[in-house]
Amino acid sequence: MTEDTVGAFLPGARTRRAGASEGPLAGLTFAVKDLYDTAGDVTGYGNPDWARTHAPATADAAVVTSLLEAGARLVGKTKTVELAYGLTGENVWYGTPTNPAAPDRFPGGSSCGSAAAVAARLCDIAMGSDTGGSVRIPASYCGIYGIRPSWGSVSLTGACPLGPAYDTAGWFASRAGVLRLAGEVLLPPGGDGPLGPLLKVQEAWVNAEPATARALAEALGAAESVLGSALPIQVAPEGLDAVYDHFRCAQAVEAWASLGPWIEATHPELGPGVKERFAAAKAMDPAKAAAGRAFRRVLQARLRGLLGGGAVLVYPTAPGPAPLLTASQAEQNAVRERTMGVTAIAGLCGLGEVTIPAARVGGAPVGLSLVAAPGRDRALLALAERVADAAGLMV
Amino acid sequence: MTEDTVGAFLPGARTRRAGASEGPLAGLTFAVKDLYDTAGDVTGYGNPDWARTHAPATADAAVVTSLLEAGARLVGKTKTVELAYGLTGENVWYGTPTNPAAPDRFPGGSSCGSAAAVAARLCDIAMGSDTGGSVRIPASYCGIYGIRPSWGSVSLTGACPLGPAYDTAGWFASRAGVLRLAGEVLLPPGGDGPLGPLLKVQEAWVNAEPATARALAEALGAAESVLGSALPIQVAPEGLDAVYDHFRCAQAVEAWASLGPWIEATHPELGPGVKERFAAAKAMDPAKAAAGRAFRRVLQARLRGLLGGGAVLVYPTAPGPAPLLTASQAEQNAVRERTMGVTAIAGLCGLGEVTIPAARVGGAPVGLSLVAAPGRDRALLALAERVADAAGLMV
Repeated sequence: MTEDTVGAFLPGARTRRAGASEGPLAGLTFAVKDLYDTAGDVTGYGNPDWARTHAPATADAAVVTSLLEAGARLVGKTKTVELAYGLTGENVWYGTPTNPAAPDRFPGGSSCGSAAAVAARLCDIAMGSDTGGSVRIPASYCGIYGIRPSWGSVSLTGACPLGPAYDTAGWFASRAGVLRLAGEVLLPPGGDGPLGPLLKVQEAWVNAEPATARALAEALGAAESVLGSALPIQVAPEGLDAVYDHFRCAQAVEAWASLGPWIEATHPELGPGVKERFAAAKAMDPAKAAAGRAFRRVLQARLRGLLGGGAVLVYPTAPGPAPLLTASQAEQNAVRERTMGVTAIAGLCGLGEVTIPAARVGGAPVGLSLVAAPGRDRALLALAERVADAAGLMV
Repeated sequence: MTEDTVGAFLPGARTRRAGASEGPLAGLTFAVKDLYDTAGDVTGYGNPDWARTHAPATADAAVVTSLLEAGARLVGKTKTVELAYGLTGENVWYGTPTNPAAPDRFPGGSSCGSAAAVAARLCDIAMGSDTGGSVRIPASYCGIYGIRPSWGSVSLTGACPLGPAYDTAGWFASRAGVLRLAGEVLLPPGGDGPLGPLLKVQEAWVNAEPATARALAEALGAAESVLGSALPIQVAPEGLDAVYDHFRCAQAVEAWASLGPWIEATHPELGPGVKERFAAAKAMDPAKAAAGRAFRRVLQARLRGLLGGGAVLVYPTAPGPAPLLTASQAEQNAVRERTMGVTAIAGLCGLGEVTIPAARVGGAPVGLSLVAAPGRDRALLALAERVADAAGLMV
């Protein structure tokens, strides 16, 4: 394999494994985020104290098995934000991967290494995970394709948890056809049938930086050429701030339930941002978390009813390109809040979302998202390929 | 039966028939628009020349049989606009029924007599038919409940055609519970399951007169109390003028195909408006009609995808209260065009629509429409009853 010039992979010896000699992914390579188990290796979860306090995995994660059996070759494990609890992709312990498409900017996270590895063409497919945007955001920032499949559609057996009610096993590819091929291996069968109409989520377009919205107009036109005129809609009259805040509160109690016991027992060193988020998770007001879960039920019923007939949401994956590496923590937090008001829509509702590397703003990539009802991931991947083709992108 | 003080029924001897002694509609009375056959009677279709050139029907229309078998008593046949081709409810041959809720205004049509009969409490249920608004509009104008069921869901056997691709057998009631009860008899089983979310069709609300939109705000709030916050959406970025125009052209060739041969053979006298519409139908440019049908396919795919998961459109049934009886033909035409830009949505797409007598403007009624995917009429009727109840209306 090519030298890891972007620091996408874990330092030290690489986990490598040949795939089956035949299969739909024969000849393709893949990497997995360091929260998926590979038998015999310690899963590090982005934090040295986690690695120190955990024994080597005794089995491969389900997705590793599936990809190997389909013929793909495992070429390594990629860096993750510590405990997957961050969106910039920063890792102070192992080094933040370079964003190959915009080296002066963050790669995005938490699946930062997987995104960087695919963007640098170090592998064809890379598994990430997405709770609140951890595949979609680095895909958008690094200029590659990414999917957050609908909740529950891809096995998380052998993956470290963050917020089990929101966690999904997603992946990246630099070509739409490869993203889809991996889906044919990883996703359950079914969910075919036509998608449409296209719904342009007004609040998400308004939330985007004007230059980003402008840059994505052409790709939106490509989507319209496939699905017909986009219908302007508002899906969260409560406001994206409310969507973000409810997601944050509901997720925090899950994160603390999943990881608090280990943190309390181990007192690990945690990097900037991550440390503060776990402190907030520990202190989360149960009433706010309950309100978040109640809002989730409302939004979920709403979006599932809206999308159940095949409708597809379309909006900028992130409000703009990746923040600069020189951004302050306050600036990063502001971007995070503005970003998650939109990513939390699919997060709260368990929807499938594919991001297409549709445009650049000042040289840095921005993605366009297509979002469909749970269980429609295969159709969504086929649609993304058609839209990318119509937009003249590499499919 | 009470005296027909509003001229809702055909003049002369009334068609009357007892229903089955038991059944879900036992104790209720019904009337049918004079385009449904009743055995032994000439079906007049609103025009003396039609009556003169047609023999008595040899069998009851399917809906007549269904209602009689369910225990309802038939108390008469009601006036219709000639050949059902008009929205004001005017009939120069038999007299325009009085709008019991606003006697200085048109009753709306083409199912004018059925609406007037129910509004004047002369019967519990009245069958109309709806191609481009002929149940919804008189229901809105007369302050009663009305349903245009989804296309194909209720039999039109034994009913005169106008535009077979758009014609539906709808009905009126002064109470939501009675409207639903008739649906349980007339509609096929199935289509249960939850409805939602509520989609507020922006162009239809903007199309309404400001006073009407304001008057319906409270009922919209009642619908939101049942289905959650309404999501603003635009369903026809092409514009309502285009929707109306495509409907008009596509329907006209159907109307001429259905009734042109009789008109050419008989040279009937036709009243004002109706005469001009059939002349236009005869002269319709086939290319415009084909464009209308093509638009129909686009809009139908769009709306069925949008509503297939259970979503419900909500908008003012008509842009305002009924036109005054003193309105000029030009004023009537302007209202007609503005009205049908909205009614043509369900018309073109075969959707089910229920109108609720939700408010008054300057003393005259205006209705609020709830619109669902084809096949969801039973659920829609149950929803309308809940919304009406939440709005404090008679259910």
